[in-house]
Amino acid sequence: MTTNSKINVGVFGASGYTGFETISLLRRHPSTNLVFATSESTAGGSLSDIYPVPWDIPLIAAADAPLSKVDVVFCCLPHGASMPAVIAARAAGVRVIDLSADFRLTQADIYQKWYGVAHESPALLDSAVYGLPELFRAQIAETDLLANPGCYPTSVLLALAPLLQAGLLDTTAPIIADSKSGVSGAGRKPSLKTHFVEANENLSPYNIGRSHRHVAEMAQVIDALGGDSERLIFSPHLVPINRGMLSTIYVTLAEDTAAAAIHGLYTEMYGREPLLHILPLGQLATMAHTQHTNRCAISVTSVSPRQLILCSSIDNLGKGAAGQAVQNFNVMFGLAETDGIQ
Amino acid sequence: MTTNSKINVGVFGASGYTGFETISLLRRHPSTNLVFATSESTAGGSLSDIYPVPWDIPLIAAADAPLSKVDVVFCCLPHGASMPAVIAARAAGVRVIDLSADFRLTQADIYQKWYGVAHESPALLDSAVYGLPELFRAQIAETDLLANPGCYPTSVLLALAPLLQAGLLDTTAPIIADSKSGVSGAGRKPSLKTHFVEANENLSPYNIGRSHRHVAEMAQVIDALGGDSERLIFSPHLVPINRGMLSTIYVTLAEDTAAAAIHGLYTEMYGREPLLHILPLGQLATMAHTQHTNRCAISVTSVSPRQLILCSSIDNLGKGAAGQAVQNFNVMFGLAETDGIQ
Amino acid sequence: MTTNSKINVGVFGASGYTGFETISLLRRHPSTNLVFATSESTAGGSLSDIYPVPWDIPLIAAADAPLSKVDVVFCCLPHGASMPAVIAARAAGVRVIDLSADFRLTQADIYQKWYGVAHESPALLDSAVYGLPELFRAQIAETDLLANPGCYPTSVLLALAPLLQAGLLDTTAPIIADSKSGVSGAGRKPSLKTHFVEANENLSPYNIGRSHRHVAEMAQVIDALGGDSERLIFSPHLVPINRGMLSTIYVTLAEDTAAAAIHGLYTEMYGREPLLHILPLGQLATMAHTQHTNRCAISVTSVSPRQLILCSSIDNLGKGAAGQAVQNFNVMFGLAETDGIQ
Amino acid sequence: MTTNSKINVGVFGASGYTGFETISLLRRHPSTNLVFATSESTAGGSLSDIYPVPWDIPLIAAADAPLSKVDVVFCCLPHGASMPAVIAARAAGVRVIDLSADFRLTQADIYQKWYGVAHESPALLDSAVYGLPELFRAQIAETDLLANPGCYPTSVLLALAPLLQAGLLDTTAPIIADSKSGVSGAGRKPSLKTHFVEANENLSPYNIGRSHRHVAEMAQVIDALGGDSERLIFSPHLVPINRGMLSTIYVTLAEDTAAAAIHGLYTEMYGREPLLHILPLGQLATMAHTQHTNRCAISVTSVSPRQLILCSSIDNLGKGAAGQAVQNFNVMFGLAETDGIQ
Repeated sequence: MTTNSKINVGVFGASGYTGFETISLLRRHPSTNLVFATSESTAGGSLSDIYPVPWDIPLIAAADAPLSKVDVVFCCLPHGASMPAVIAARAAGVRVIDLSADFRLTQADIYQKWYGVAHESPALLDSAVYGLPELFRAQIAETDLLANPGCYPTSVLLALAPLLQAGLLDTTAPIIADSKSGVSGAGRKPSLKTHFVEANENLSPYNIGRSHRHVAEMAQVIDALGGDSERLIFSPHLVPINRGMLSTIYVTLAEDTAAAAIHGLYTEMYGREPLLHILPLGQLATMAHTQHTNRCAISVTSVSPRQLILCSSIDNLGKGAAGQAVQNFNVMFGLAETDGIQ
Repeated sequence: MTTNSKINVGVFGASGYTGFETISLLRRHPSTNLVFATSESTAGGSLSDIYPVPWDIPLIAAADAPLSKVDVVFCCLPHGASMPAVIAARAAGVRVIDLSADFRLTQADIYQKWYGVAHESPALLDSAVYGLPELFRAQIAETDLLANPGCYPTSVLLALAPLLQAGLLDTTAPIIADSKSGVSGAGRKPSLKTHFVEANENLSPYNIGRSHRHVAEMAQVIDALGGDSERLIFSPHLVPINRGMLSTIYVTLAEDTAAAAIHGLYTEMYGREPLLHILPLGQLATMAHTQHTNRCAISVTSVSPRQLILCSSIDNLGKGAAGQAVQNFNVMFGLAETDGIQ
Repeated sequence: MTTNSKINVGVFGASGYTGFETISLLRRHPSTNLVFATSESTAGGSLSDIYPVPWDIPLIAAADAPLSKVDVVFCCLPHGASMPAVIAARAAGVRVIDLSADFRLTQADIYQKWYGVAHESPALLDSAVYGLPELFRAQIAETDLLANPGCYPTSVLLALAPLLQAGLLDTTAPIIADSKSGVSGAGRKPSLKTHFVEANENLSPYNIGRSHRHVAEMAQVIDALGGDSERLIFSPHLVPINRGMLSTIYVTLAEDTAAAAIHGLYTEMYGREPLLHILPLGQLATMAHTQHTNRCAISVTSVSPRQLILCSSIDNLGKGAAGQAVQNFNVMFGLAETDGIQ
Repeated sequence: MTTNSKINVGVFGASGYTGFETISLLRRHPSTNLVFATSESTAGGSLSDIYPVPWDIPLIAAADAPLSKVDVVFCCLPHGASMPAVIAARAAGVRVIDLSADFRLTQADIYQKWYGVAHESPALLDSAVYGLPELFRAQIAETDLLANPGCYPTSVLLALAPLLQAGLLDTTAPIIADSKSGVSGAGRKPSLKTHFVEANENLSPYNIGRSHRHVAEMAQVIDALGGDSERLIFSPHLVPINRGMLSTIYVTLAEDTAAAAIHGLYTEMYGREPLLHILPLGQLATMAHTQHTNRCAISVTSVSPRQLILCSSIDNLGKGAAGQAVQNFNVMFGLAETDGIQ
């Protein structure tokens, strides 16, 4: 499978939705050569054994992954399981794009609090860069360990960042993110909650308030951008849709501000971003704006001079996971940022 | 079709979803006799021509409705179209349950502002009673003109009422209702927005902030219950579900209050209500709690001593329309409140 | 919970969809008193722990079921698990309505061939009656052991029966039943196939030809009604719908026959059946005709003088399971056949 | 928008689903330059006015289309409306790929019988080539007027062709195609049948037997390949899915034939086709095999030595419309057949 002049990549965890989506994107990427893909449950088989595709990509056990033959690995394993794979890859000098939560939080104790296990490599945590290219492009280009953001944080943080960076928020008022996610965000492991009959024709809030793990990740970036993360209220809802995420975000401004001025802030900051779509004033972002794409679409609605509603739409497997991982890969390797994900 | 000792009823507007649902409920009601059902588009035909049911209920033009033979009519016509039917029925001495918006707002000028037409009978407006039985049961029992609430207001107001009546809200803070509705709430008239391919696998906010007509209706009751309706922010979303509505409501309390105390307030006020289901602390209301029922399910979640999230679930055609209309009918005629809608 | 003059019933297997649906119907039945409901996984808890309902029906282990206090039990257990419960109930003199496949096949060896385990009570098999009331009402009224039909067989056999009984089929030609089922037919146990993301926006044939277990059950009745079951081809498909089943059935007639004559045969045989809906010629049965009902809707389409297409629609949990079980119960106990399932 | 060395293309009818899908594919095609796109309803606007995309593709009236600047046009207009556009394009010497039904039937009188209008250019009919590349590649390469097949015919004919060409079918037995289609196949124009609430959670047969227009198109090719089209029975069903089509096809063989021999026939004929996916024996084609692709997936199941079931899956907007149109374009212009549709 090797090809000269291409970047050799491996994928850990090919059998989940983010792993499969990552491979689907890499197959069409002009500059990558897929050297290996792992799956513990289907090791020895092929990707076509577990997904309805005609491509015969062999799957191997993670322990057999030829790390010496790749330049970079995408880790699509669940949190906890990702840590040892990342540590091994970094020890072998391989650059890492980790789609799990294992390297997103900068502090090991906070990781342990939210994920219930001790972090296995606090030292590596220090070197990890949080992969929101629109906010942290320069650091991403330099890093060898990229922590790809969660889907909810991507949708919320991209929407909040312009206001936070410009210092426009009333830092004493709640930031309320009411988020709706398609079911693929819950992974491929069957459960009663994601059983078709239970999820279909239903809509369920879960872990609302400040109890979802993604609160920690959002809080870290909100604080870094000058906000007060203690004011964040985040309410995820499961909706009967395969792919898609919409966050409806309610914020209070410190001073009366015209809608046009806010909108101008967004177009100025994001207008040249290839994967951000700022809607004209008067239009609202829907899931359809980004489904099966790697973009984020954001709309700004002024309710009153102090009250704004932001609607932020991503595909949870696109900009919310695999698409953003490939975007980060492109930045890390100096490629055109939309290669393979246009 | 007349039967002694039963209440004779007529239905205006049988061909829409609320009209059909009303007739479906009335068919099983132990104390009603359906005298007529109208449909302009199918006059001369039968309900089975337009719905996949085996019952042959003849449909007539509204102009041919024998008002002298009924005790009460359910008006299931669109707003605007309902006014003349209501006026005619009241002139004939027939009691009216109006499922449109035409008699919900107490002030004719506010009606005109939101619905774009002058009200045809401001005098009748004064006699109309807003039909939330859990709040206004005594007045409902006495009225001859019942304005059945909208679906969104039902879900939001039932959730807010205990806090408003107890004066517990910080009246300077926003009341944010993020609502999600199944598509039947948009009626049966085809449109691009409700075309299957557009609505399916999509989730769309619309008329968010303070621009949806139901804001007026909610504001009127919020103010009547001692709140400040100017703080209301209401964001409806269309979700790919046939029937169901969930409002996730974010409120701020005036003083630090324990979750158990709030929950106690709800169980005290609503615990004996046959059609309200207050969930135990720790559980969250989902659409499945009320789908194909005439109940409202409410959960209370404390985020902090001052921040609450209420989740309020109804079936938009049940407690949000036809089910509540039959409940109001039962109250108006002194029947058991759950007759026909259990 | 006992009440005089009501029939005391117990339900084994309350936690699956058919068990829950059975209990939901029995709650509204005018002549039943629910004495117990069992669930091994939730014994000691309540039905509201596992379904989003406000009714607190206690769940007990099957071993603790007070058989001496009931007149009849509904067995809603999986095949194999149902046998011992049925045997115990019959030993206690309790009448049984078994919704599993355990007593549907009259021959123990055929049961073993299809279900992979030896039958535990061939003697009881002899006394069991197959519960299609429209075909076997007299025997059902007399039996103490009712084998409630499978969903696919109900939809296919009710459609074929008039042609088989009248001897109109060309017995050398294939009988092709292309069936489509909602996902609740697969039960409540999570699996990859019924995971929301896999089933949604997908349609999958499975066990097509003569390999699905329901072939045995259909074959038995086809032969009993004078057909040749060897000609049956049955192809089930999973469709992204919660409840509903449609069988499109292709048959060849022995002689040229006018569509009106065929239609007349169906209306004559089924026209007075309260739970069968024979559509007028020119209309086609859809899932919507029977969803959330306990009816079967059948349409007849003539392609040519020898070729017919029958479309047969049921709700797989209604006429295809719990609804038909209650109908059989009504017949067994001499009640009005639609009590509780209208 | 002009670029040297690229093929200049125009699209008539950009606002429907096939037009939009065609443009979406052409945007990524390495060898095309989109010169114009027409929409009568949105002339003067942009594609982003009617679809949630960030690309600003201007839309013009068909009368303003600069035919002299293009090498080829894709006609995505409804049948009837397509004829004048095709005639004008051919008169201007522009090659045409017509996605409507207007040039699929070789005989004008048969066109008139099925479509109810006289054909406007029987002469052009003679020059049109039916665009199933796997069957008619040589003729497609030479033609200036390509009639892109309907979605149902594509799924049925690709599955039947190997058996027809090999003369293996019992020509006296019915060929039964039970087809299931996603709702986008019905177009973007709202109607009650495609209203979300009516189509969702429902499954409806329509025009079953020999009454759907696609029967004519299938019959023409079945006869051309040596079959007897009078034996065709075709039953389309609408399923609550956006994109996808599955045809379950029941055929009788003239002689006893082993499953492996049949399967070998398919792999021999289609094994090297880049857009056909013949599944291994024992697997069944599902909609998921081809959704959001331009492939056709076919499975072969032997019920008995004489009875076969073929399952044939396409995306109705991919291989069933726009994807196949681009494939035909590639063949017509001597490009790699999967350019832009891989």
